[in-house]
Amino acid sequence: MERSLENVFNPRSVAVIGASEVPGKASERRTRSLLEGGYTGEVYLINPKRSELFGRKAYPSITEVDKEVDLVMIVVAPRFLTAAVADSVKMGAKGIIIITAGLGESGEEGKKIEAEILDEAAKTGAYVIGPNCSGMFSASAEMNLLGVPQIERGPISVLAQSGNVIDSLTHYARMRGVGFSKIISVGNAVGVNFHEYIDYLKDDPNTKVIMTYLEGIKDGNNLVRVARDTAKKKPVVALKVGRSSAGARAAASHTGSLAGDEVIVDAAFRQAGIVRVSNADELFDMAAAFANCPLPKGKRVAILSEGGGDNSIAADNAEKYGMDVPVLSTETQERMKPFLLEGMPASNPIDYGGTAEENPHMITECVKVCMEDDQIDGILITGFFGGFKDIIASHVAELEEKASEDMVEMVKQYRKSLFVHTSFAREPIKSLDILKTAGVPVIESSERAAQCLSALMHFSINQKKISQMRIPAAEAKERAQVKELFKKVGEENRSNLLETESREVLKEYGISLSEAILAGTPEGAVEAANKMRYPLAMKVVSPDIIHKSDAGGTKLGLKDGKDVEKAFKEIVKNAAKVTTRKGVLGTLISPMAGPGQECIIGMIRDPQFGPVIMFGLGGIFVEVLKDVSFRVAPLAQEDIDEMVEEIKGYKILTGIRGEKPKDIDALKDILAKLSEIAIDNPEIKEIDLNPVIVHEKGASIVDSRMILG
Amino acid sequence: MERSLENVFNPRSVAVIGASEVPGKASERRTRSLLEGGYTGEVYLINPKRSELFGRKAYPSITEVDKEVDLVMIVVAPRFLTAAVADSVKMGAKGIIIITAGLGESGEEGKKIEAEILDEAAKTGAYVIGPNCSGMFSASAEMNLLGVPQIERGPISVLAQSGNVIDSLTHYARMRGVGFSKIISVGNAVGVNFHEYIDYLKDDPNTKVIMTYLEGIKDGNNLVRVARDTAKKKPVVALKVGRSSAGARAAASHTGSLAGDEVIVDAAFRQAGIVRVSNADELFDMAAAFANCPLPKGKRVAILSEGGGDNSIAADNAEKYGMDVPVLSTETQERMKPFLLEGMPASNPIDYGGTAEENPHMITECVKVCMEDDQIDGILITGFFGGFKDIIASHVAELEEKASEDMVEMVKQYRKSLFVHTSFAREPIKSLDILKTAGVPVIESSERAAQCLSALMHFSINQKKISQMRIPAAEAKERAQVKELFKKVGEENRSNLLETESREVLKEYGISLSEAILAGTPEGAVEAANKMRYPLAMKVVSPDIIHKSDAGGTKLGLKDGKDVEKAFKEIVKNAAKVTTRKGVLGTLISPMAGPGQECIIGMIRDPQFGPVIMFGLGGIFVEVLKDVSFRVAPLAQEDIDEMVEEIKGYKILTGIRGEKPKDIDALKDILAKLSEIAIDNPEIKEIDLNPVIVHEKGASIVDSRMILG
Repeated sequence: MERSLENVFNPRSVAVIGASEVPGKASERRTRSLLEGGYTGEVYLINPKRSELFGRKAYPSITEVDKEVDLVMIVVAPRFLTAAVADSVKMGAKGIIIITAGLGESGEEGKKIEAEILDEAAKTGAYVIGPNCSGMFSASAEMNLLGVPQIERGPISVLAQSGNVIDSLTHYARMRGVGFSKIISVGNAVGVNFHEYIDYLKDDPNTKVIMTYLEGIKDGNNLVRVARDTAKKKPVVALKVGRSSAGARAAASHTGSLAGDEVIVDAAFRQAGIVRVSNADELFDMAAAFANCPLPKGKRVAILSEGGGDNSIAADNAEKYGMDVPVLSTETQERMKPFLLEGMPASNPIDYGGTAEENPHMITECVKVCMEDDQIDGILITGFFGGFKDIIASHVAELEEKASEDMVEMVKQYRKSLFVHTSFAREPIKSLDILKTAGVPVIESSERAAQCLSALMHFSINQKKISQMRIPAAEAKERAQVKELFKKVGEENRSNLLETESREVLKEYGISLSEAILAGTPEGAVEAANKMRYPLAMKVVSPDIIHKSDAGGTKLGLKDGKDVEKAFKEIVKNAAKVTTRKGVLGTLISPMAGPGQECIIGMIRDPQFGPVIMFGLGGIFVEVLKDVSFRVAPLAQEDIDEMVEEIKGYKILTGIRGEKPKDIDALKDILAKLSEIAIDNPEIKEIDLNPVIVHEKGASIVDSRMILG
Repeated sequence: MERSLENVFNPRSVAVIGASEVPGKASERRTRSLLEGGYTGEVYLINPKRSELFGRKAYPSITEVDKEVDLVMIVVAPRFLTAAVADSVKMGAKGIIIITAGLGESGEEGKKIEAEILDEAAKTGAYVIGPNCSGMFSASAEMNLLGVPQIERGPISVLAQSGNVIDSLTHYARMRGVGFSKIISVGNAVGVNFHEYIDYLKDDPNTKVIMTYLEGIKDGNNLVRVARDTAKKKPVVALKVGRSSAGARAAASHTGSLAGDEVIVDAAFRQAGIVRVSNADELFDMAAAFANCPLPKGKRVAILSEGGGDNSIAADNAEKYGMDVPVLSTETQERMKPFLLEGMPASNPIDYGGTAEENPHMITECVKVCMEDDQIDGILITGFFGGFKDIIASHVAELEEKASEDMVEMVKQYRKSLFVHTSFAREPIKSLDILKTAGVPVIESSERAAQCLSALMHFSINQKKISQMRIPAAEAKERAQVKELFKKVGEENRSNLLETESREVLKEYGISLSEAILAGTPEGAVEAANKMRYPLAMKVVSPDIIHKSDAGGTKLGLKDGKDVEKAFKEIVKNAAKVTTRKGVLGTLISPMAGPGQECIIGMIRDPQFGPVIMFGLGGIFVEVLKDVSFRVAPLAQEDIDEMVEEIKGYKILTGIRGEKPKDIDALKDILAKLSEIAIDNPEIKEIDLNPVIVHEKGASIVDSRMILG
């Protein structure tokens, strides 16, 4: 059998090491849910103290089982864990689910045991799920190892780091009649990582939506890669908590200090096409919408209601979530008017004007007109549908049911998303049940309805974009000259590259730099200067000085040889105070950059996502407004376009107050090459190109810093 | 009887003009809800075509009634309306509710009828409610004129511009067991305006919360004044629609009102202490929370749960809505630890660690510890409370009920807000019903729970601030010299003040201006210049030139008399091309402003809110970032402080990159005086002080413009 999570989700046999009959115990609940859940493969219960459990034979050890065992669930104390895993591996286990807690999350001792487990599992390549997890559910195998009763079946698969969030979700599902294909509690995720599950679920025909709950992210770089690939087929909807646990990162570079954890998570998720939500109920509504609705082609919504108030609220919500509410075409308006009260405008939002409560058929007709308009991508009904019978008269119930049936048919026929917001959504009303059963979202909150429909629309637009992207390879390609340089720096026990060195790296990757000459003496400086066009800039070059300006190591606007000589002497004198004269290699002389807009471009190696590229404008834009954008490398061209365009100050680059536009392509070129440098050279921990002056033509990297680590 | 809305809400008698028995008709539904709603005063039904209605005598005309009638509801066609109002006034009506639609919102003809109605009502001072409204409900009078069955009684009063939003709210109330004191559908609000209702409800002992739904705002200046006054006693919670252009479209087609600039609405509401929400369900949850909960003293929340996942989500939500989640004091932690699973940290959020599901008593104990900690202002329980019985065992139900009872007692004893988020909130569970009945919010959405608790906390903080504010009078005080100036400008058929004139106005209000001399000839210019310190600036003065720079009418940095002479000639030559030589009065010469930060200060007369003062930084902050703040005049000192501090670029004023702080007080002084100018001089339509350069000491108004209108 090939190594695949398939063997974990659809095992031929399951053993429970540490099976128990004591009511309420973690092990008892899970053993019972397995036995009562309909699993048809072999089940082996292991407990050295019992010969019988749940009326079945109990084995003293898994090694006593006379057949291979595909999947093992272990619920034993930490000190017995390594042996249990070793035995499972011996018995041919393809997957080992470890419920046991008190491991890596508790301290060093636990981490040691985790390492032992992984060593054992590595012998055969068995998957380790957990430890400290709450189990797994697989509908295709009728296998419930979660100890939760009544799991509804459906097209949603769940990955979660918290057991009680899984409880929430199964509860919401029961209440709303939506269900699950697979549920995995990943626990400490020492073996199988998040993105591996996603990679499997991507191709799982029973999974239409992947729902995740995350507390921390491991190997975010692969998560972005896999999620982006998955987005071409199906959505990943993620609830990531921890926005508030401000993780102050110790970083030497400017880029590092601007990169808050959550800012990068947001950027990475957007880049990966992951739909991010912030609450469990939102997660559920969102996943249900994705599971049930056709994906809209664009973001143009038609809003319909029997009341202007609800229409206004819905239109505000539509705008808040980035949908368009276009005025309907004249043709569509003409087609719709016969169904509206005379004089009501059919522009959009559409107000039936008091006819629909008595004749819900009018709604169907209006919906049909919108379904047939190819300038509308989705339809949102808002107001009281389902409750007209209460407001008008009981005979209306039947008319509402007919309208529901017709609308269900239309969704099938036209494959266009229809959402129904109604304040009666949570009441047991037949017309609404007809919609719900057919997968038409019926949502009590107008805002949530807009939020979900908008997410579908934006996912669809993003999916198109991602499908067309050419994403550069994430594999490092070595460049001998650069590696040689790093070797030398390493041998000198330095982690900071000299500016002359970082310039070498940039040049090697084809980034154009203005002329610069290193001078070791005042005379050399003047000689070098005279080869260039004044005015000039001069900077100290010393392995001991990182913050050149602070050390008095920078002089600008040098106008002639006299200036240059004086500047050299002063810089060296200042620098020698910080280090020694020997520690000063000399000064770097280069022409002053021409006029333009100050920018900052950088790279940090994020503990969660690996190489992350940053872009922003300089000055108050970084100092005061933190107006910067991030993307995880490798960057596709679309990533680069977005990160330049999404900053608030973007307009400054395109030209304001009559100024000519700046050379945005030159900036994009630097970003692309920086991504390449980051991928090829994992030795580099941080890069600051600051400032980069972008001109009407070209861009000048005025200062560059690289830190190895 | 004194003129008071009291007579409208508690009338001794009610007449219905246009009463009907035809099922489903607007008039029939309202007549029926009045007759069946328990109203004990006299009711007169008027219909010239019927002698009997609902088994009662019907009068052909209200003038046939032999007693005075306090309140009249009119449901007749527009063409009969003026006569019906005139008759009502004759019969002594104190209030006239007009359901009839098709008036001001439909066009000129309707507006004419509205004017006639107001003329009639003005004869006795009768209140006109509506037209185009859906009626009124008053619990104290047991009077239901809304035609909606089953209105729950309670402490919330509603003002709404949309009939179907009222339907929503009464439906939500039924579902959640909260109720109303008064409900007013204001319709076109041609007679009684929004703020008059609020002013009445402010002192109404039966109203604890005022809930409003607004589409457009009329007389926003009074709304701000009254709402701010009301905030000292009780909250106004407002759903204002029309943020989006499509929303504005929907609102415009519904009432006749003009949806205004949402940035100003946001600022005005914040200033007025109005709690703004964006959806009907949010409006309801918010009002219910305000109606039932003690107001917290500050914004420090303790979060408790049986699970880490729910705690993380709640902590994120708390931060999102601006609450603090402080680490509990050592003492409190020590007191709490006995109730937590060993090893669980009691820092905050607090995770009971799996003990509470079986022993809900632990929750009560933890809540008690938080209730007794005066460093905690509110408590949020999150997770599964009420559902432990399902997860653990049925006997837990009783324990949960006991916990609920104890918590209800604690809320009463300690007067501290307790919110319960549970995914079981909407299920019929006794332990939750105990909480709900006692007014403890039990909310299904974790986010909504945080949002409501936070709103309580921030309202409370704001209430303290507002109560201490000294708000300047909104009455205009005339200044003879300024009025004289305006008179002169008016006589010259100008609306733009010359800069020399706007400087006069500013000076009259004590705003300090740098020296400036108007020169009519080149010689005069040089003479004036020589009295000042170079470098100088020169600007054209002409009633025909508004945009001085565009007309080549500005010269900066003049270094000597030669410069001045040349500049004068050029300016006059350029200006004469736009107007004539006679149209150029001369040039204004003043010293160049010293270094500092460019700002913009302005005033506009907003169609909704009247005089609105604006503040922002200059350059890209206005051009690109629209980083400006607004407040409705008159400004209190606290308003001024906030409007300066809330702009994103505020840090620039306090000093960044080693720069010294700027003279913020000088800016605030200008703002205060501009507010005074705006209040005293309704003739002024717009003021631009742009740029204002704020220095380390003082501020220079480099250019000023005033437009009358």
